[in-house]
Amino acid sequence: MSKLSIGLLGAGRIGKVHATAIRATPRARLTAVADALPEAATEVAESAGAEVRTIDEIIDADDVDAVFIATPTDMHADLMEQAARAGKAIFCEKPIDLDVDRVRACLSIVEETGVLLMVGFNRRFDPSFHAVRGQIDAGAVGEVEMVNIISRDPEPPPIAYMGRSGGLFRDMTIHDFDIARFLLGEEPVSVSAVGSVLVDAEIGDVPDIDSAAITLVTATGKIAQISNSRRTTYGYDQRIEVHGSRGLVRAGNIHQSTIEVAGDAGFTKPPLMHFFLERYMPAYHAEVKAFVDAVLDGTPSPVTGYDGLRALMLADAALASHEQRRTIDVSP
Amino acid sequence: MSKLSIGLLGAGRIGKVHATAIRATPRARLTAVADALPEAATEVAESAGAEVRTIDEIIDADDVDAVFIATPTDMHADLMEQAARAGKAIFCEKPIDLDVDRVRACLSIVEETGVLLMVGFNRRFDPSFHAVRGQIDAGAVGEVEMVNIISRDPEPPPIAYMGRSGGLFRDMTIHDFDIARFLLGEEPVSVSAVGSVLVDAEIGDVPDIDSAAITLVTATGKIAQISNSRRTTYGYDQRIEVHGSRGLVRAGNIHQSTIEVAGDAGFTKPPLMHFFLERYMPAYHAEVKAFVDAVLDGTPSPVTGYDGLRALMLADAALASHEQRRTIDVSP
Amino acid sequence: MSKLSIGLLGAGRIGKVHATAIRATPRARLTAVADALPEAATEVAESAGAEVRTIDEIIDADDVDAVFIATPTDMHADLMEQAARAGKAIFCEKPIDLDVDRVRACLSIVEETGVLLMVGFNRRFDPSFHAVRGQIDAGAVGEVEMVNIISRDPEPPPIAYMGRSGGLFRDMTIHDFDIARFLLGEEPVSVSAVGSVLVDAEIGDVPDIDSAAITLVTATGKIAQISNSRRTTYGYDQRIEVHGSRGLVRAGNIHQSTIEVAGDAGFTKPPLMHFFLERYMPAYHAEVKAFVDAVLDGTPSPVTGYDGLRALMLADAALASHEQRRTIDVSP
Amino acid sequence: MSKLSIGLLGAGRIGKVHATAIRATPRARLTAVADALPEAATEVAESAGAEVRTIDEIIDADDVDAVFIATPTDMHADLMEQAARAGKAIFCEKPIDLDVDRVRACLSIVEETGVLLMVGFNRRFDPSFHAVRGQIDAGAVGEVEMVNIISRDPEPPPIAYMGRSGGLFRDMTIHDFDIARFLLGEEPVSVSAVGSVLVDAEIGDVPDIDSAAITLVTATGKIAQISNSRRTTYGYDQRIEVHGSRGLVRAGNIHQSTIEVAGDAGFTKPPLMHFFLERYMPAYHAEVKAFVDAVLDGTPSPVTGYDGLRALMLADAALASHEQRRTIDVSP
Repeated sequence: MSKLSIGLLGAGRIGKVHATAIRATPRARLTAVADALPEAATEVAESAGAEVRTIDEIIDADDVDAVFIATPTDMHADLMEQAARAGKAIFCEKPIDLDVDRVRACLSIVEETGVLLMVGFNRRFDPSFHAVRGQIDAGAVGEVEMVNIISRDPEPPPIAYMGRSGGLFRDMTIHDFDIARFLLGEEPVSVSAVGSVLVDAEIGDVPDIDSAAITLVTATGKIAQISNSRRTTYGYDQRIEVHGSRGLVRAGNIHQSTIEVAGDAGFTKPPLMHFFLERYMPAYHAEVKAFVDAVLDGTPSPVTGYDGLRALMLADAALASHEQRRTIDVSP
Repeated sequence: MSKLSIGLLGAGRIGKVHATAIRATPRARLTAVADALPEAATEVAESAGAEVRTIDEIIDADDVDAVFIATPTDMHADLMEQAARAGKAIFCEKPIDLDVDRVRACLSIVEETGVLLMVGFNRRFDPSFHAVRGQIDAGAVGEVEMVNIISRDPEPPPIAYMGRSGGLFRDMTIHDFDIARFLLGEEPVSVSAVGSVLVDAEIGDVPDIDSAAITLVTATGKIAQISNSRRTTYGYDQRIEVHGSRGLVRAGNIHQSTIEVAGDAGFTKPPLMHFFLERYMPAYHAEVKAFVDAVLDGTPSPVTGYDGLRALMLADAALASHEQRRTIDVSP
Repeated sequence: MSKLSIGLLGAGRIGKVHATAIRATPRARLTAVADALPEAATEVAESAGAEVRTIDEIIDADDVDAVFIATPTDMHADLMEQAARAGKAIFCEKPIDLDVDRVRACLSIVEETGVLLMVGFNRRFDPSFHAVRGQIDAGAVGEVEMVNIISRDPEPPPIAYMGRSGGLFRDMTIHDFDIARFLLGEEPVSVSAVGSVLVDAEIGDVPDIDSAAITLVTATGKIAQISNSRRTTYGYDQRIEVHGSRGLVRAGNIHQSTIEVAGDAGFTKPPLMHFFLERYMPAYHAEVKAFVDAVLDGTPSPVTGYDGLRALMLADAALASHEQRRTIDVSP
Repeated sequence: MSKLSIGLLGAGRIGKVHATAIRATPRARLTAVADALPEAATEVAESAGAEVRTIDEIIDADDVDAVFIATPTDMHADLMEQAARAGKAIFCEKPIDLDVDRVRACLSIVEETGVLLMVGFNRRFDPSFHAVRGQIDAGAVGEVEMVNIISRDPEPPPIAYMGRSGGLFRDMTIHDFDIARFLLGEEPVSVSAVGSVLVDAEIGDVPDIDSAAITLVTATGKIAQISNSRRTTYGYDQRIEVHGSRGLVRAGNIHQSTIEVAGDAGFTKPPLMHFFLERYMPAYHAEVKAFVDAVLDGTPSPVTGYDGLRALMLADAALASHEQRRTIDVSP
C-alpha cells in the first residue's frame, strides 16, 4: 500500500479541513466522501477528485483503507464501531462521545478489532506546541512541575449549539485537558474547577458557563492550571507554559502579521489570528500526516482512544467540582 | 509641617530599603532609627544623618511624626497599638500579624485613635502594575472579568524562617492576594487552592508547601488565578494580566538589560532581575512617597489595615481549602 | 477565460516554487512545463497534471495564455521578447537582464506588443511587507521620510554562481532596491554605497563583495539605508522599517516557532526561518495570485518592467559609487 | 584620599544631572559649585551641602581634587587648560570644542600636565550598551564586522541653539560616532554621509539638517551605518546592533513601562522613555562612578581626549562628505 486510501465521513466545516489536509499529504489519497447534504459531499469530492458515496458504502469499500469521522458528535461512537468491525483504520474527531460509559464500550469494541484509532486532538500537532513537547523530551526544563494554559476563544458558539455541546468543559476545555496531559507527562488524579457566566447571560440560561478556572494535580503533586473564556477582542488566545526543575518553556500567540506601528499612542501590533481554523491549520495538516504515517508504517496511534476517554473524564470531573464546590478525584 | 519626620523601627534588610527610600523622598526626613542590634541601627542612622534611639524613645518623641514598623512580624501588632496610642502615623510592613483575630483587635485600636495606617503591600506601587490599574480605571479593558497572576520566587527562604513564616499562603501568596483584590476591584468571596512540595522535600517537613495554584471568585463571578512557586532558574517571575469585556491589559517581567544575542542556537535575552529588592525597588520608593503624601496632605491611606486583614483571610482560606480539598467561603 | 492557462519555462528550484504556487491558485492552471533537463520538467509536470513541452511549443501554444520565465538569467530577455510577440502575458523572474541597455530594448518590444509583464519582486507580496505598505497608504505614519532595510542572507551562493551573478548589488541588493522604492513612494535620485569582503576572502577573488551599506536619496530628500551581508548564523534576517512624519511602521523577522526556553542562561527563542524559500513562500503564492488576477481582470501589472529596470539602475549606480567613492546620480 | 572632592563648573541642566550623580556616588563628594547665574549655583549647592564659589576659586582650591566642566561649549577648552595646569582631574562634557585644531592644542596641554581627563560620552555607560560591549569582549559574536545604529531624538533643539551647535553631525551624531568606535573596536578611516531637512524647513535656514545617514568604514572593511533624525512621535529611539562572524548582539529601546493593552485594534505598548535625561540617567550615574574610580585608583581614563577628538573629526568628515557628495578619508 503505497498511498493510504481514505474515506471521509462528514463534509462540513471540519470535514473540509481534513479533506484539504489529506490532499496535501503525499502518502494519502481521498477516495470517497459522504455527507447527509449531497451538495456538501459533492463539493468536497469534486475538488479532490474523489467519489461521493454513502457512509455504508465507504465503510464497506475494498478500496478504502481508513475513515475520517467528521460527523455530528452523536454519530461518532456508532460509526467507530462499524468502521472498526470493517477493519478500517479510524481517525475520529473529538469527542468520541459525551458519555463516558458509551466511550468505554466503543473503545472496547475498537480494541477487540485491533484497528488503529486516532482521536483528533489537533493541538498536539501545532508546530510550536510540538516544539514545547520536544524541549521537554530533550530535558531543557528538567523535571516538569507546573503547567499554565491560557485558552480563550474570540467568541462563543451559537446558543443553539451550546445546548448539545456537553457544556464548556466537555466542548472547549477538553482540548486543554488533553494538552495538560500531553505536557505533564503524568496522569492528573484530581480536578478543582470553578465556572462563571461573564460573557453573555443567555449562556447561563442554556445552562452553561462561558468562563472557567481549572486546576489539575497529578499523583506526584505536579500542577496544571487552565484559564478559559469564550471571549476575547484581540483574536484567538492560545498560550502554554511549562515550568520544570531547570527552567521554563512556553509557546506564544501568533499575530496576524509581524508589523508594528509606533506613534504618540505607543507601539501597536495587529490582533492575533482570529480563531482555530487560522491558528491551527498547520496542526490539522500535521495530524493527518501523523495518522497516515502511523497506519502505513504500523506504528502506534499518536493520540489514542484512551487519550480521548481521559480528557472526557477530566471534563466530567471539572463539572462535578464546579457544581459541588470541592476537589474531585479522577484516578485512572 | 513641611517635612514628615520619620522614626524607623527595625534596621534589617527591609528597614534599610525603607531608609533609602525615605532619604530619596523630598517631603520626608529620617529622624531616628531603632534596632535590637546597635550596629545595624548605627549604620542606617549614620548614612542618613539620623539618631539612634530605642523603640520607646522614638514612639514617644515629639520630633517624630510617623513610624515605619520593619521589625520581626511578631512585634508588628504591639508596636502598631503603641504607636497609634502615641498619635503617630504608621507604616507597617506586611503582615500585620499571622493571626486574624489579633489583626482585628489591633486594627480596632488603631481605628479608635484615628491615626493614618498604611500596610506595606509594595507591589501596588510598581510602576507597571500601577499603570495596569490606571488602564483599568481609564476603561481600557471595559469591565474586569478575569485576573491571572504568575508569581514565582527564584529560591525558597531559609528552612529556619519557613517554620515561623505562617506558610507559603501567608508569607508569599499574601502579596498576590492583595494584587488580585487590587485588580479585581471586587472582594473575593471564595477560595480554592492546592499546594505541592516540588522544589525541596525539606520544605514538606517544615511542614510547608513550595508550589501552589489558587482560584478566587467574587460575588459577581469574576475569577482570579494565582500560580506560585518558590523556584525559578531565570530570575524573579512577576506577571499579571487582566481580562475585561473589552480586552486585556498586562504587565510583564523585567530583564537584567535590553540586550539580545543571536547565533546558531537562537536569540537569547538575559535572565530577569534576580529578586524583589531589584525588581520592586522603584515600588519601595513610590510607596514611601505615597505614605508621606497621604499623611502630609490628609488624604486616605493608600493601603488600609482592612487590605492587610483581607489578604490574610484569603491566605487562611487557601490553607483550609488545600487541607480540606474544597472551596472555602470568605465573604467579607 | 475562467482559468488562466500557464506554461512554465524552467523547472529548477524557483520554477518548482512557481509550479506549486500556480497549483494553489484557484484561477490558474499549469498546462505545460519546459526545461533543458527532461527529468526536471517531467517531475514538475507529473505532479501538476501538466504536459512536458519544449519552450517554443509552449510559447506558440494556443492553449497557453501566459508564461512564467524561470530559466537562467541570460535567457530572460530573449524569451520575454519571443513570448511578447506571441501575445502571451509574461511573468519573469528578476532580473530581466544584467545589462541596462538590453533591459531597455526588451521592455520596448514588450511595450509595443501590449502584453502584461510582471517582474518577480516577490518580497512586495510578503504579507507583513504588504501590510507595512498598507499602513503607509492608510496614513498611519504620515509622510514617509526615512526607510531602513536590513537584509542578510544566511550564507553566500556558490562561488561558481557569483561570477555570473552580476555581483552582490545586482544579485542580492536588487531586491532591497525594489523594496526601498516600494516603501519610499518616490524615485531615488542618488546612490552612495560601500562594500567589503568580510565573510569569505574567496568572494573577493571573484571579484565580488559580501557585505555592503547603501544610502539612497530622493529628490525631496527622503533617505533609505540598506544593510547587506551574505552571512548570518541565526537564520534569514529580513527587516524593514519606515519612519514618517507621524511615526514608524516596521516588519520583523519570523522565528522557526513561537517557543521560548528560559533557564539560568536567559530566555532563548529559536533561530529565524532559514532562507528565502521558507521565509517568502507565502509571498511566492501571493505574487502568482496577483499576476493571475491582473491578467484575468485586465488590471495593471503589480510590478512593471520599469520597476525591474530602475532596480537594476540603482544596482549599477551602487557599484559605481563603491568603486569611485562618490555619490552617483540616478535621476529617472 | 578616601573620597574624591569635586568642583562643578556649570549648574545648568546637565550640571544638575552630574550633581545628582556625584551625590549618589559613595566615593565622591561635591564640594563646590560655580555658575554664571548665582541662583542656579545656590540651588545645586544647597541640595548637596556644597559651597558656591567662582570658577577660579574652584580651580585654585586646595580642597578640590577634580572638576566637572558643564559650562557652555565655548568655555570648555579654556577651562580644561586652566584646570589641567592647576593639577585637577577633569571630567568634561562633550564636545571639547567645535574646532579640531583647538581640541588638539587643548589636549596637548592637558597631556603635558599629566592630569586624568575623561570626556562625557555617557552612552558608553548605558547598562545595555555596556553589556553589548561585554558580549563582544566575551567573544559572543566572534569578530565584529558590521554595526547598525539608529538614533532619533523626539524633537529638535531650539532653533536659536542650533546656530551655535556646530550642526547635526557635531552636536547629535557625535554620540553615535563615539558609540560606533566603541563597538567597532577599530578606527574608521572613511566617512560617507548624506543629510536632509525633513522635520522643519526652519532648520534648513539655520543652515542645518535634521535627518542624516552616515556610513563609516575601517581599514579592514568593517562597516558602521548610522541613522539620525531630530524627530520621533513615540519617544527617544536609541538602538544599536553589532554583527560578527558568529552572530548578532543588540540593545533595544526602553518603554515607559512593561504594560501591554490588547483590544480589537491590536496589542499596544506605551511609547519609549521621552529623551536622554530619562533614558540615560543610569548612564550618567555610571560614568561619574567610572571617572571617580579611575582618579582614585590611578587607572586610565575610561573615555580619553583622543576619543573626543576622533568623534569630532568624524563629524567634520561627515559634513564634508554631505557637502562634497563623496567619501572622505579620516585616517588617524
